[in-house]
Amino acid sequence: MFVRAVSSGGGIPVPLEERPDALIWTSGPDSFPPALPESVRWVQLPSAGVEQWLEWGIIKRHPQILWSSAAGAYSATVAEHALMLLLAGVRALPQHLATTSWQPEEFYPRLGTLRGATVGIIGAGGIGRALIPMLSSLGAQALAVNRSGRPVPGAVETFSAERIDEIWPLADHFVVSAAATPETEQLIGAAELAAMKSTAWLVNIARGSLIDTEALVHALATGTIAGAGLDVTDPEPLPEGHPLWSLPNAMVTPHDSNPPALRMPAYVERVIENVTRFASGVEPVAVLDVSAGY
Amino acid sequence: MFVRAVSSGGGIPVPLEERPDALIWTSGPDSFPPALPESVRWVQLPSAGVEQWLEWGIIKRHPQILWSSAAGAYSATVAEHALMLLLAGVRALPQHLATTSWQPEEFYPRLGTLRGATVGIIGAGGIGRALIPMLSSLGAQALAVNRSGRPVPGAVETFSAERIDEIWPLADHFVVSAAATPETEQLIGAAELAAMKSTAWLVNIARGSLIDTEALVHALATGTIAGAGLDVTDPEPLPEGHPLWSLPNAMVTPHDSNPPALRMPAYVERVIENVTRFASGVEPVAVLDVSAGY
Repeated sequence: MFVRAVSSGGGIPVPLEERPDALIWTSGPDSFPPALPESVRWVQLPSAGVEQWLEWGIIKRHPQILWSSAAGAYSATVAEHALMLLLAGVRALPQHLATTSWQPEEFYPRLGTLRGATVGIIGAGGIGRALIPMLSSLGAQALAVNRSGRPVPGAVETFSAERIDEIWPLADHFVVSAAATPETEQLIGAAELAAMKSTAWLVNIARGSLIDTEALVHALATGTIAGAGLDVTDPEPLPEGHPLWSLPNAMVTPHDSNPPALRMPAYVERVIENVTRFASGVEPVAVLDVSAGY
Repeated sequence: MFVRAVSSGGGIPVPLEERPDALIWTSGPDSFPPALPESVRWVQLPSAGVEQWLEWGIIKRHPQILWSSAAGAYSATVAEHALMLLLAGVRALPQHLATTSWQPEEFYPRLGTLRGATVGIIGAGGIGRALIPMLSSLGAQALAVNRSGRPVPGAVETFSAERIDEIWPLADHFVVSAAATPETEQLIGAAELAAMKSTAWLVNIARGSLIDTEALVHALATGTIAGAGLDVTDPEPLPEGHPLWSLPNAMVTPHDSNPPALRMPAYVERVIENVTRFASGVEPVAVLDVSAGY
């Protein structure tokens, strides 16, 4: 599949020993070669988040090489998962599924809508941006947060990272889609949760480290917020018996928003695109900004 | 709220004894007055479906009166609910919520996507039409079925009622949003379910009578289709102990997709619109077609 992708992008697929110009990697950092031929000028990585690649020093070891991630390639499927968790929360699906009798009056006051709601998108990268038109189609408005505060297309307002505290009481719900960096670690803790509306649903499809798990469990158990939908957790994997498994207002999916069957075709497309660009001397999509950490 | 709505539509709110030109009804058919003053030329009903009003002979009793329903007024909120059930099914949320340990590999093969999927919209009235842009924003395509086969805006293909059998093997998933009429009773039975893909999710937010419940339970239990999301059932209320409550691939919400808190503001808007139209001699929105039964 990848051999064909390289060819259809205008490249010639060869093994690493034949000193290629570029390396298309399809696996994790653990099996990455300890040394690369000097011929390699560009490496394409298959994941959207690259913390491990940075932490393990793999990138730093090769300062002369251009690295690109698959950031953005999986945005649509992860954004779909985020929307699913958000809608299921707002429409009280976990509570419905735990019920075995017909009690509409019980549910009437619990059922919300995204129509007319504002959704805070914490980190408006590929996933956050992919989510905005989905929210718009439901009549919801996006409030975005990014580092620079540069307006995100489709968002009614964009906050810079310095102004992030303004968003917690303002938005009705939140989707966390920021990169995991030292600055975003435990971005959402007890104070941020307390500042949110008590009807807020919090969805995290980014990295578990962005939320203080202990504070979240407390907020869910005491009704500080309405609930959480988590595709990522801290720790991860989430151990058996952890309160997030049993809280009625927590939905956990095991980091499977972007499963292999949906991922492969998307990565193949990205490889074709980036090989095409590299072959014609254009910078690949999603080149790593090593100083920013993503 | 309704007194104000009538005023802001250009009407003068008076009690029925003062022989008004029109009646804005805000309740069910059980409390409807047995006789109306001869002055009444138009009655606005608060529900989108009007089977009971027809069955109980209330409409027939007043052949000289123009009746309008609230069809379309609640479309967006019900379409949102339908999308929630469909997404939750396709993304295996019921199975996730029943799991209390971290097993991504278990879920990888179960996780689908609406991206690139086709969704059969069975009955493209207000709800079905409201759903189409929501599906489009997720990269799904709508195949519509309506009585006439007249192309539905946004659908990639529209089938007439006579061609409905073509859609069962063709679409990936289905949302039932047709009016309950004698022709649509048990529209989906064993044969239709068997013709669907085994990966199909079936969502019903219309009326329970459109699906043969016994055939559906069998199809869910034997894996003929992947699952069902039902806001309406037959019988309704669904009795305790019914298999639909316990099947792991059935999601039941107790006809609450359009709860009072979300319904009232929508009905008020419709009343304002229709009073405005009536007051200026324009036909109200959603006038009943008594011969068609909706």
